[in-house]
Amino acid sequence: MLWLFLILPVISVTSRTIITDNHSSNAISDRIIELVTQGAFRGVTYNRLAALADTIGPRLCGNESLSKAIDWVQSAMIKEGLDNVHVEEVKIPHWVRGEERAHLLQPRFTKLSMLGLGNSIGTGPTGIRAPVLVVRSFDELNLRCAEARNKIVVFNPQCDWKAQPLACYGTVVGYRVGGASSAAKCGAVASLSRSAASRSIDSPHTGVMSYDLTYPKIPAGSLSVEHADMLDRFQQRNQSIEIYLYMEAQTLPDVVGYNLVAEVRGASLPNETVLVSGHLDSWDVGQGAMDDGGGAMISWTVLSLLHSLNVRAKRTIRCVLWSCEEFGGIGAEQYFTAHQSEVPKMSLVMESDLGVFHPQGLQFLGKPQAQQIVESISKQLSSINATQVVSGGGGEDISPWTQRGVPGASLLNDNWDYFAYHHSNGDTMNVLNSTDVDLAAAVWAVYAFSIADLDNLLPR
Amino acid sequence: MLWLFLILPVISVTSRTIITDNHSSNAISDRIIELVTQGAFRGVTYNRLAALADTIGPRLCGNESLSKAIDWVQSAMIKEGLDNVHVEEVKIPHWVRGEERAHLLQPRFTKLSMLGLGNSIGTGPTGIRAPVLVVRSFDELNLRCAEARNKIVVFNPQCDWKAQPLACYGTVVGYRVGGASSAAKCGAVASLSRSAASRSIDSPHTGVMSYDLTYPKIPAGSLSVEHADMLDRFQQRNQSIEIYLYMEAQTLPDVVGYNLVAEVRGASLPNETVLVSGHLDSWDVGQGAMDDGGGAMISWTVLSLLHSLNVRAKRTIRCVLWSCEEFGGIGAEQYFTAHQSEVPKMSLVMESDLGVFHPQGLQFLGKPQAQQIVESISKQLSSINATQVVSGGGGEDISPWTQRGVPGASLLNDNWDYFAYHHSNGDTMNVLNSTDVDLAAAVWAVYAFSIADLDNLLPR
Repeated sequence: MLWLFLILPVISVTSRTIITDNHSSNAISDRIIELVTQGAFRGVTYNRLAALADTIGPRLCGNESLSKAIDWVQSAMIKEGLDNVHVEEVKIPHWVRGEERAHLLQPRFTKLSMLGLGNSIGTGPTGIRAPVLVVRSFDELNLRCAEARNKIVVFNPQCDWKAQPLACYGTVVGYRVGGASSAAKCGAVASLSRSAASRSIDSPHTGVMSYDLTYPKIPAGSLSVEHADMLDRFQQRNQSIEIYLYMEAQTLPDVVGYNLVAEVRGASLPNETVLVSGHLDSWDVGQGAMDDGGGAMISWTVLSLLHSLNVRAKRTIRCVLWSCEEFGGIGAEQYFTAHQSEVPKMSLVMESDLGVFHPQGLQFLGKPQAQQIVESISKQLSSINATQVVSGGGGEDISPWTQRGVPGASLLNDNWDYFAYHHSNGDTMNVLNSTDVDLAAAVWAVYAFSIADLDNLLPR
Repeated sequence: MLWLFLILPVISVTSRTIITDNHSSNAISDRIIELVTQGAFRGVTYNRLAALADTIGPRLCGNESLSKAIDWVQSAMIKEGLDNVHVEEVKIPHWVRGEERAHLLQPRFTKLSMLGLGNSIGTGPTGIRAPVLVVRSFDELNLRCAEARNKIVVFNPQCDWKAQPLACYGTVVGYRVGGASSAAKCGAVASLSRSAASRSIDSPHTGVMSYDLTYPKIPAGSLSVEHADMLDRFQQRNQSIEIYLYMEAQTLPDVVGYNLVAEVRGASLPNETVLVSGHLDSWDVGQGAMDDGGGAMISWTVLSLLHSLNVRAKRTIRCVLWSCEEFGGIGAEQYFTAHQSEVPKMSLVMESDLGVFHPQGLQFLGKPQAQQIVESISKQLSSINATQVVSGGGGEDISPWTQRGVPGASLLNDNWDYFAYHHSNGDTMNVLNSTDVDLAAAVWAVYAFSIADLDNLLPR
């Protein structure tokens, strides 16, 4: 396809075969940083991501666009000459949004900014027209349970996002995930929750929800922060509120999906592995650029850089691009089931799924002895001022491994504004910039290579 | 109507008749600040604005919602007992948006985030399907004029908004206003311009445009920053771009509209006036809370505060809430024509149309001798740290007066983020906070009263 050709990075051949196998980890790290900051890889990762995000767009689990993305990256990896490029089959859910809309009918008519939530059922062809009860917490709903009968319950939890973004995200997502069944328990006919957004310009944020099968399934959506607060004010003024909600959302039978795998095989210990990863699926809004096209592209670039430098670490570096993270690490869970025999030989599992903004270093999850080794490697990133190593390093897709004691890592980056764009139409290329993405790729590659090239597996 | 009752501020009667006519300007200023920070007016202005913005919503020129807003404020002013409450008839344009949408057809199908521009014609019932030419400037369009024939021209001007927001706004708005005719000159079939936005979460911004009648009228809309940049990247990659645009926009015959006027008559010089104002109309997106419900509401509050304090300045303080500012100061221009005989007796014209964020002081447009007097009054605002007086103070609606030498003023406030919300669905109550709106009303009232109470008109 034309666009496939157009977006393959032009990697100067002069950058190849410079380095022999008698390399030092430091020398490779310097060459990696040089390649992304001044060399043939400057802008490559951002341009790959832009081509993916612009031309294929968002990549909802089970959707044709995700298959297109996998095909495109796989073809590019094969053309590039990476090792062992292949897909591994997984079974993934197939939720479809369909048409959807919400209108405020009383006290005035206006369109509401909403998005249906993943896994939600639809409203049926006639939609749902009902009065509204606004609550700010599950406790308030329990107190007013009788009032919720035959109403649309709007959850409007308040939180100081500036003070504690991650804590607020956790709290507010609780209503996104569990709001519908809590409302159904009280006889509500639908549930709309305040978007889990740190900032909003009337931006609804979607995400996955789940049903407690003890109660009837009712349609579940999210509202923009502004519209949730407006409804809240109507109720405070004792103005009666009526909403019409129409959602065609439905869950179709599971489909076959794929995790995409490529490697730079190890020179001397090819059966021992460092895994780098991000998820290729996204929500079906915006471009899926930040969540998680960026994490997927820097993981691919790790292999591209080493291949371009024509260098192999002692161990294999394996890039896995997951399918269906957004519905709960579906592809990654099945990958682990198929590969759990590798637990003893997996030195480190890395996942970038919290943005590829300006990188500061690494979040690491492992024993102190292992963290000391990581900290010694961090000095190789001093030229780009990304030497921080902090505890953390979990991730949805690598958790099956870290739960079994495999050390884990994620990218530490300047992602303070992540929840302004996450799962919304604002997740586009404009959120990222090419220089920061290059540096993020360098951090990712330096750690992957240096740890894969150690004399031993990381201690666990 | 119920909502009318609900939103009238509860003003404690105890706050009345405390102050006799033997007042000092300083004492009144202190009482004004006390009333909004601790007294009966705390939250009143924000709550009035919320009731207007929530219950009536946006108020497009010529639209029924603008009439409703005028009726509601007028009824409240009469009930409150302000002087000389009345409307003055003006002739205003009646542009209607109707349904509208834009879809990217090539290289992939997706909905584009767009808003039609005020005054634009529609596309006709079948819409317009055409290839796209992206240009970043009028100069580039002139160079590529032949390429624009039978295409939709997308203007994507780049600007460093963080460095110079006002300059960028001026530049980018030039494309919003003049882009369509420049494109039509080259044979384009429609024009889409990058939104004039300092920040965006996929937020299209509307606004007024105009046609150069030398060239055919073509439909004109705006795109979100993100989508304008995406189209730009497609073109940079030589990917062919095709868009389908559908707009029902049309301009209906002019209708009768109204400027709303109320006063606190002067105690000794009632025929001399200080005018305070904001515009009650808004764009038909968001809530018209920031632009310019806030400016209108603080101007109303100036009268409410003085009425509540039962105090009159020497001169009349007149509040005018303009109609149809967004289409070019239409109501204000006709008001001036009817009232220009008052130029010699108009001491100061004040307009708040740049936000009611945390106030810092006043922008003033007048002679140095006049500014010295304003600076001496500014000390009365030291308790709320809003003592700055800077040059500026113009405004669309007061410009007919300032052009004739009448001193002008506008509110100096912390509006650095104004262009993130301006003319978009993000212009909601969430942009503002009650405390800052109270303080803005205090600054507005202290200057209006103190200048109306001077021994002489401001020098000009």
